[in-house]
Amino acid sequence: LTLATAGQHTVRRHNLALVLGAVSAAGRTTRAQIAQATGLTRATVSALADQLLAAELLDELDPDRGAPGRPGNPLRLNPRGPGGLGLEVNVDHLAACVVGLDGSVRAQHVEPFDVRAAAPGATLRRAADLADRAVAEAGIPITGAGLALPGLVDRDGVLRRAPNLPQWNGFAAAETLAVLLGVRIDAGNEANLAALAECSAEGLRDFVHVSGEVGVGAGVVRDGRLYAGVRGFAGELGHVVVDAAGPPCTCGGSGCLEQYAGLDALLRDARAADLDELVDRAGDPHVGGVLAAAGRALGVALAAAVNLLDVSDIVLGGSYARLAPWLIAALQAELERRVMSREIGMPQVRVSRLGPYAAVRGAAGSVVARLLAAPDSVGKAVVSA
Amino acid sequence: LTLATAGQHTVRRHNLALVLGAVSAAGRTTRAQIAQATGLTRATVSALADQLLAAELLDELDPDRGAPGRPGNPLRLNPRGPGGLGLEVNVDHLAACVVGLDGSVRAQHVEPFDVRAAAPGATLRRAADLADRAVAEAGIPITGAGLALPGLVDRDGVLRRAPNLPQWNGFAAAETLAVLLGVRIDAGNEANLAALAECSAEGLRDFVHVSGEVGVGAGVVRDGRLYAGVRGFAGELGHVVVDAAGPPCTCGGSGCLEQYAGLDALLRDARAADLDELVDRAGDPHVGGVLAAAGRALGVALAAAVNLLDVSDIVLGGSYARLAPWLIAALQAELERRVMSREIGMPQVRVSRLGPYAAVRGAAGSVVARLLAAPDSVGKAVVSA
Repeated sequence: LTLATAGQHTVRRHNLALVLGAVSAAGRTTRAQIAQATGLTRATVSALADQLLAAELLDELDPDRGAPGRPGNPLRLNPRGPGGLGLEVNVDHLAACVVGLDGSVRAQHVEPFDVRAAAPGATLRRAADLADRAVAEAGIPITGAGLALPGLVDRDGVLRRAPNLPQWNGFAAAETLAVLLGVRIDAGNEANLAALAECSAEGLRDFVHVSGEVGVGAGVVRDGRLYAGVRGFAGELGHVVVDAAGPPCTCGGSGCLEQYAGLDALLRDARAADLDELVDRAGDPHVGGVLAAAGRALGVALAAAVNLLDVSDIVLGGSYARLAPWLIAALQAELERRVMSREIGMPQVRVSRLGPYAAVRGAAGSVVARLLAAPDSVGKAVVSA
Repeated sequence: LTLATAGQHTVRRHNLALVLGAVSAAGRTTRAQIAQATGLTRATVSALADQLLAAELLDELDPDRGAPGRPGNPLRLNPRGPGGLGLEVNVDHLAACVVGLDGSVRAQHVEPFDVRAAAPGATLRRAADLADRAVAEAGIPITGAGLALPGLVDRDGVLRRAPNLPQWNGFAAAETLAVLLGVRIDAGNEANLAALAECSAEGLRDFVHVSGEVGVGAGVVRDGRLYAGVRGFAGELGHVVVDAAGPPCTCGGSGCLEQYAGLDALLRDARAADLDELVDRAGDPHVGGVLAAAGRALGVALAAAVNLLDVSDIVLGGSYARLAPWLIAALQAELERRVMSREIGMPQVRVSRLGPYAAVRGAAGSVVARLLAAPDSVGKAVVSA
């Protein structure tokens, strides 16, 4: 890896990112086309492309003899070049994935794990094992990792409060995992990272993505960018009230959405052991009633979110992606009663196609996005297959 | 007024705005200092300043002999130059104000008026009379007007839905008032405009401003800019739920904040005729209980807003600015129970100092902001004192 150290040459970094961005946008393009798209000279593009090829960020294909005009060797993002590792520690599961520079998913795993019952150190060791497995399968070098966590994560990547994992409050999870894996790790809120993954995957620009796990969180995207709030704590949909006089919540409040539609509440009310059993028994009238009630509560909280945020789409993710068929009618009915702008236009309710992988894909994607924006930082790649 | 027509000379417009902006930022400054601040040549600054002086946007003061270095005639924004007219049509009152180019308030009036009981045309005539009075008192020319309306106003300035003024749904209020007054009028949501006024007045950058009127609305400001949502309909705090099974709301939903803390609900529950009587009798135990209950409901809805939006300040405006002493303890108690990030940092609850003038000041301020950004549009001034 031959690129200069980060920070030394900001113009060069800018131009490297410009070339990489042009290739990323085009998918497959020539040096001449990059020069045209970026306004850089042909010679500059060639020199930068050579550096990006040497760093294995770009890949050169055979000349495209069928194309019109002067043939040139097409360039693309190198699918075997350095990529990003995504990790997730959630209340009842762990996940890891590796995403290539071109956005391709090289490996992804989710495994059930009772994080509430385990010591944080034991959880991190298990997560590190899962990461190793994903990296080995992916067969590409990793330049960094993103870690999705279920709680308030500040802009320094510290998990400040996780009501469903109180022993993790203030715990330096990312730093410890970085030591275990030998790679830079940036932590973020799982619902925010899931929303970013959804943004890339579906091309939506104004939406709320709901992560229906034991905790219920949301990521808000406005005009294609994450709305994270002043400290990064925005989107706590699980603690929007359905009935202020309702049951006590882990957050200290009462009647929060999470108490009506969080996965723990659903399993308890449906007397199911896990999500698989809940889905299997969803046709049972009692379980169907539990899911319809959860759909109503979700509709109440999402109507509040739409009234405050004015988004055009709602994406149901996490366990809600699987439960959607039994939630959606009751949810829609509440939206149709409560969204102020319903006569002008209703938000579209969609089901995430990323399923349980959204947060971990967003975590890996954030590493790739950083790499594309600052290609010279690839010199710091430390984990290799 | 000698400036060119809007759109003809975009570089010149840009440079005029640059000079005007430099004067606005400095308060009082010389041509040499403007050249330094903007990077324009001294000759260009002088030519542009002459045009801005001719258009009465700038004002030249006597030489500042006490200042160090070469004396120059200081320039400032002309307090007698063209300004903006603000208008508000709310459920139970009308307002008008005139703001000068330097942000000075030249005239402001609020008058009670039962808009629900009046025909829209009669309301507009009364609002036009109030505007004439404010313009006459202000003694400066007006280049345009902003109109604050209590409902969903789309990006074309059309009031699409006002649950408390159903006869105004879709009514072309701004166009008609523009004809009556002979000036360009842009309509906006009253809570959004109030938040913009608060942003200018207090220098806050991340807050929710609550307009407590018959309708309860909010304006959300993130990093100094209004968060208006995809269609401009964001901030409908009055339709965040306190108890989904609560009383029916004018919006078609049930248990919305407005049914617990809107001015109609407060007057009804306290058996008071108007806000003055409510304030007079706030010490009465029954009325105090009504206001505490409203404070609790406000706290529930604002906690939801803080959990979703992660703002650092909450500003109580409209009637809440006067009622704050009797609302705030109960409101704070709910925030302290329900805000997810409370242990990391609580949002600060402030009381608006703009009182009932916030929305109309925001409406006038939006005209001045547009003028500062495009000074050549001053050629279109049509209303004069």
